[in-house]
Amino acid sequence: MIFARFLLAGAMAIAGSPLLADPLPSWNDTDPKAALLTFVESVTDPASPEYVTPADRVAVFDNDGTLWAEQPVYFQFLYAMERIGELAESDPSILTSDTLKAAAEGNLEAALSGGEAALLEIVNVSHSGLSVDEFQDNVAGWLDTARHPVTGRPYRQMTYQPMLELLSYLRDEEFETYIVSGGGIHFVRAFAEEVYGIPPENVIGSAGKTRYAVIDDVPTILKDAGLAFIDDKEGKPVGIDTHIGKRPILVAGNSDGDFAMLEWATAGKGARLGVIVHHTDAAREWAYDRNSHVGQLARGLDEAPARGWLVVDMAQDWKSVWPGR
Amino acid sequence: MIFARFLLAGAMAIAGSPLLADPLPSWNDTDPKAALLTFVESVTDPASPEYVTPADRVAVFDNDGTLWAEQPVYFQFLYAMERIGELAESDPSILTSDTLKAAAEGNLEAALSGGEAALLEIVNVSHSGLSVDEFQDNVAGWLDTARHPVTGRPYRQMTYQPMLELLSYLRDEEFETYIVSGGGIHFVRAFAEEVYGIPPENVIGSAGKTRYAVIDDVPTILKDAGLAFIDDKEGKPVGIDTHIGKRPILVAGNSDGDFAMLEWATAGKGARLGVIVHHTDAAREWAYDRNSHVGQLARGLDEAPARGWLVVDMAQDWKSVWPGR
Ligand SMILES: [Ca+2]
Ligand SMILES: [Ca+2]
Repeated sequence: MIFARFLLAGAMAIAGSPLLADPLPSWNDTDPKAALLTFVESVTDPASPEYVTPADRVAVFDNDGTLWAEQPVYFQFLYAMERIGELAESDPSILTSDTLKAAAEGNLEAALSGGEAALLEIVNVSHSGLSVDEFQDNVAGWLDTARHPVTGRPYRQMTYQPMLELLSYLRDEEFETYIVSGGGIHFVRAFAEEVYGIPPENVIGSAGKTRYAVIDDVPTILKDAGLAFIDDKEGKPVGIDTHIGKRPILVAGNSDGDFAMLEWATAGKGARLGVIVHHTDAAREWAYDRNSHVGQLARGLDEAPARGWLVVDMAQDWKSVWPGR
Repeated sequence: MIFARFLLAGAMAIAGSPLLADPLPSWNDTDPKAALLTFVESVTDPASPEYVTPADRVAVFDNDGTLWAEQPVYFQFLYAMERIGELAESDPSILTSDTLKAAAEGNLEAALSGGEAALLEIVNVSHSGLSVDEFQDNVAGWLDTARHPVTGRPYRQMTYQPMLELLSYLRDEEFETYIVSGGGIHFVRAFAEEVYGIPPENVIGSAGKTRYAVIDDVPTILKDAGLAFIDDKEGKPVGIDTHIGKRPILVAGNSDGDFAMLEWATAGKGARLGVIVHHTDAAREWAYDRNSHVGQLARGLDEAPARGWLVVDMAQDWKSVWPGR
């Protein structure tokens, strides 16, 4: 890619034109786009006092609400409910509680009424008792056929085109791009490479317990019930430290679940950029922040100006939202 | 590097000589060297039926006893004892047990006599109560001055030159090289990049509990007491799955603590190579296997032939052991 850009630059120079293609065509020409371009130029120009070597160009992205949508509820939860319905078809005896019955019926409100314990029960039943490989095949298969209840789109097309462009732009500029998701690491890995160009080793997420075992002579990683790590809030900087061992120079999120990683990363020495995607676009996507049941954003909005974090106003700053038109 | 090799190949072609430099000069011309070269050629040659795309060329290495020495005891333990002695100098009240007193005095035998509980106590006291950054600075400082009790060498020079060459060779061939250590992730990261060319994000290890907190307005990752993950035995495939999400095609270890990851990786489809470093060299290093208190190797030796794993006989197969002569 670098070589391709070099060739392109050479061709442009020969033609007498200094123009390069716009790396962020789906962003309007408002402040956030200019700030992103300025930041990337400042850390990649060897003559800049802000220059950062490629090895330290670490950029991390929250997933739900930052790279793809999260309404009416996290897509992983919709998957979990459908999976329970599927499992119950062959074995109805698994529906041992009202929560699980509601999930199997696709009754979102009833399924969620039991709070965190209900959520954990649904995740445990839908995400354990199989190998990591089987689970990821199952998720990929679901993504092939499932449609979003409001837009009717396949979930893979409910990513944000401007963010896909930002990921590509950063990688072209020798950044390493990571996902740091409150969602499940194996769930996100099932589509991150295909959809975002982010390989499994660059996905950090919440994790259920796993176990190595040889089953019928086949060495296998099994997904068990129970949580091993919650990659949310203060867990996000911890997950980044464990997984990457470097402090990112660019962090993008959309909720107060990302506050700690924004705070930690942007407190580092040298040039740093914190980005918050603000859902302001009820016409093309959704509008929500302080009082939302998912992606609640209050402290981030309050403190972003003083901390110098970029707040991206989806309605104003994005020319288009969805990919593939 | 690829570009440099291309230039070199070009220069060789012009000179009429097809010879390339030997990538493994510290290996004798015995079977293991040939097997390593053959394996790498088979997975990197696009015309080979065993060809593996660069994204899947994942190679993982145990650290203690595989990349550097581990006698008379894991070097991290020697660090821990010295650190307790150092801490006790400014505050003797920390020596609340016979184990800690023995550690502070450098009495290895007495310090280890309390078994696993003693080990955990020593690690807890020496590895917690400070930030990750402070801890890694402390380890790096220790490595600058400490000398091995038997050889008198700095620990950074107790790595194995043939393994350093193997790491470089694999990276030149577009492998991604990882450490998967039973030792502490933060400890190993303090020197892995400088010593092995392996960056922090490619180090997987055992981990103490960590916590994000803002201390005196400074966002910090703190090391707490207690264990979060044990990257040994069945933990190694689990750690690889969590961290990389791909099954390695080359695995190197030296003890039965590596058996599970060898078994899992080499059971994958396509070309796979399992490597066991067998410590047979009492003259230049140490000779130990079945009955050793560190690096015990029994099942691996017994099953390597049937499983097709390469057993490297240090005395026979390595021309030199230590780097820098
Ligand atoms: Ca989010
Ligand atoms: Ca070992």
